[in-house]
Amino acid sequence: MNIAAISTPHGLGGIAVIRVSGPGATTIVDCHFRPFREGHTLATRATHTLTFGQFISANGEVLDEVVCSLFRAPHSFTGEDVVEISCHGSLYIQQEIMNTLLAAHRPETPLANNPMNTLRMAEPGEFTRRAFANGRMDLSQAEAVADLIAAQTAAQHRVAMGQMKGSIGRQLETLHDKLLNLTSLLELELDFSEEDVEFADRTELLSLANEIDHEVVRLANSFAAGNAIRNGIPVAIIGAPNVGKSTLLNALLKDDRAIVSDIQGTTRDLIEDTITLGGFLFRFIDTAGIRHTDDKVEQLGIERSKLAAEKAQIIILLTEPGVPFPEIPIREGQEIIRITNKTPEFQALNNIGVAELEEKLIGHAKNTLSSEGNDGAVLITNLRHKQMLDQAHHDITLVIQGLEQHLSGDLVAEDLRAVIASLNAILGKSITSQDTLNNIFKNFCVGK
Amino acid sequence: MNIAAISTPHGLGGIAVIRVSGPGATTIVDCHFRPFREGHTLATRATHTLTFGQFISANGEVLDEVVCSLFRAPHSFTGEDVVEISCHGSLYIQQEIMNTLLAAHRPETPLANNPMNTLRMAEPGEFTRRAFANGRMDLSQAEAVADLIAAQTAAQHRVAMGQMKGSIGRQLETLHDKLLNLTSLLELELDFSEEDVEFADRTELLSLANEIDHEVVRLANSFAAGNAIRNGIPVAIIGAPNVGKSTLLNALLKDDRAIVSDIQGTTRDLIEDTITLGGFLFRFIDTAGIRHTDDKVEQLGIERSKLAAEKAQIIILLTEPGVPFPEIPIREGQEIIRITNKTPEFQALNNIGVAELEEKLIGHAKNTLSSEGNDGAVLITNLRHKQMLDQAHHDITLVIQGLEQHLSGDLVAEDLRAVIASLNAILGKSITSQDTLNNIFKNFCVGK
Repeated sequence: MNIAAISTPHGLGGIAVIRVSGPGATTIVDCHFRPFREGHTLATRATHTLTFGQFISANGEVLDEVVCSLFRAPHSFTGEDVVEISCHGSLYIQQEIMNTLLAAHRPETPLANNPMNTLRMAEPGEFTRRAFANGRMDLSQAEAVADLIAAQTAAQHRVAMGQMKGSIGRQLETLHDKLLNLTSLLELELDFSEEDVEFADRTELLSLANEIDHEVVRLANSFAAGNAIRNGIPVAIIGAPNVGKSTLLNALLKDDRAIVSDIQGTTRDLIEDTITLGGFLFRFIDTAGIRHTDDKVEQLGIERSKLAAEKAQIIILLTEPGVPFPEIPIREGQEIIRITNKTPEFQALNNIGVAELEEKLIGHAKNTLSSEGNDGAVLITNLRHKQMLDQAHHDITLVIQGLEQHLSGDLVAEDLRAVIASLNAILGKSITSQDTLNNIFKNFCVGK
Repeated sequence: MNIAAISTPHGLGGIAVIRVSGPGATTIVDCHFRPFREGHTLATRATHTLTFGQFISANGEVLDEVVCSLFRAPHSFTGEDVVEISCHGSLYIQQEIMNTLLAAHRPETPLANNPMNTLRMAEPGEFTRRAFANGRMDLSQAEAVADLIAAQTAAQHRVAMGQMKGSIGRQLETLHDKLLNLTSLLELELDFSEEDVEFADRTELLSLANEIDHEVVRLANSFAAGNAIRNGIPVAIIGAPNVGKSTLLNALLKDDRAIVSDIQGTTRDLIEDTITLGGFLFRFIDTAGIRHTDDKVEQLGIERSKLAAEKAQIIILLTEPGVPFPEIPIREGQEIIRITNKTPEFQALNNIGVAELEEKLIGHAKNTLSSEGNDGAVLITNLRHKQMLDQAHHDITLVIQGLEQHLSGDLVAEDLRAVIASLNAILGKSITSQDTLNNIFKNFCVGK
């Protein structure tokens, strides 16, 4: 079955692109395409060429003058034949081209009775899903496509681009090699098990298993930094009522150079205030809640502040002259920034200006995040990957315990297979459940 | 000087397209483009080809994997070399590609000291303006591009598409032929003028001039229908306070299948309520004003209603049972629809339902608009064209008077030249004022 969707952002513009993918892509578009140069039907054109012509509506009128880009399988994004129709960016034209294509090639009425020539609207992320299904990319790369499109900061973009280029797959490949090595050593042991020989080099197996576990844990732990980059570094502003928390937050938000846009069809819900500073995203946790409640129910406000502080990587403590800073429990690794506000009623901050505070926030981000990812170490940003790594860690721990407790090789091998399955799932190698894939691709935008 | 702009709608999507046009387009993009296949620089590629590769940022990182479409002069939209960079539709990537291109090729630092290789951001409509400047289209076609992009209804689209394909130019060409014919006949007279011969066939000249005037007037008059299609058929709902005008309007608006979108960079200001029915746009004149004032200052409301009625093509008179319809002066050609509302307080309409009213509105549109434009007759939709035609009519009237009053051929020829100049201005042939062009293109979207 062929699929089609408008791939450019929704709205009005100079040009828009409608993408058609599948074995019947050229046949389908040719039904509605009148090339300016005679004989230049898409069926006859070479891959990677551009063809000018008219798109003809169902009633025979010229709907638009268009350019068709042709990518023949397997040299296309999806790995299938792809035609991209570049038309004028009128909403009417975009919709009418889609309507014309879809109406003429319904599954009920296949062209020339050939089901290869039927067409339907693409589901969100379906082009990328086909690229994955056709082996053009692994699942972690496909997932990175959505992150790449949603990226608003340099750091988000860098991590997503690395993943889209296959950094996770390469990282897991070395792990996979080690796991295979471990498996063969274990099989060697099994081969000789009937001779009731206990091998001296279970030490070697153990050392290899620990090495693998170490790397799995490192990857799983990189999720903290990866998530901070992808969803923003969590920051809490803690202070007594009326000390100027809203003023401070507004001052930061006003300076925000972030791109503001309605982000439809992406994976994140921006329910908290976020700002972009120095190419990093910062997320202010539940500050709205603090703002709304602390005037009325002070105790509740303090409880909320403590909760926010717990989740934060950076805590900004705010007070006024002569009043001690609020006391909250601090976790290891949290950065504390103390600010004394000049007057209680929403005045400029005296001992630390907004620009200086921004520098401190950027400095923290650079110290904690830039080193990771830049040195080539892979960052995990996807919760699904984190969960698979946690599962792999759990199973490799069982392998280690089994080896230590001299369990039989068969039992250890079973846990080992579970480890391999979890890591393979990250790349989509062993995923057979359509539900899992549906879930992954449902948050993509349509047209990608 | 080369120009660049994001040509796809603003926002986030599967893909976005950045268009670069000018003699240095391939050289400029090649500086940042690393083709996947070695040697496939754009400089070496044939026209109408697609090339996969990476777009490299200023610091040497891969910003995105892109596809470059190459159109070599003169076989491009602008008539110049054009490269279209198709990238992932992330806001970050779109901006960074633009930033990278613009920063590297500032006019202050031309590449290889060659001013042909400098780049700046395209102004609104500048690609189309270049297409016009390079003779790829006349000015009426260029203007139609903006209308085509803004078109929301089938009727708007049909008229704009016809104009973009050059319908106005073809129409004016036949007028131009007649004007040239008239000129030669006049010159023939002038050649013999020293012999003091008055030609008998001034009748022929007069007949030709009247024929031209007839066609100019027909075109100018088509603006009423053209404008109704382009900006909506003006409808006024007239009725006493609280008779249900808002309810009626809301019922119509709720049924609106129009595409709702923020239309940035287009030529129309939608300050009035508009709805799309049966492929036609209807514009409700100043009904907001009526709604706001008639409760409080009834007299003012009535005055406003009368003003609205004067401008309307369709007047909906609304009353309640037992109350006579409001009396307003009716112009010739106005359609009156009378509706008696069941109860005064916002109830369903009894003698005519909303569906039936919609049918009536569509019927009116079909009767008055479909015949025009469909039979091949050109519709004028652009106020500038209307003004030029009015001017041409004024001058051809002087020609007719001159011929009737037996003025000397020189004087008549002068008025004749003015007619030709006005008609040429519609196609942009005789426009030398940059202000006029600036004014025409300023309302285009950037990237077209």
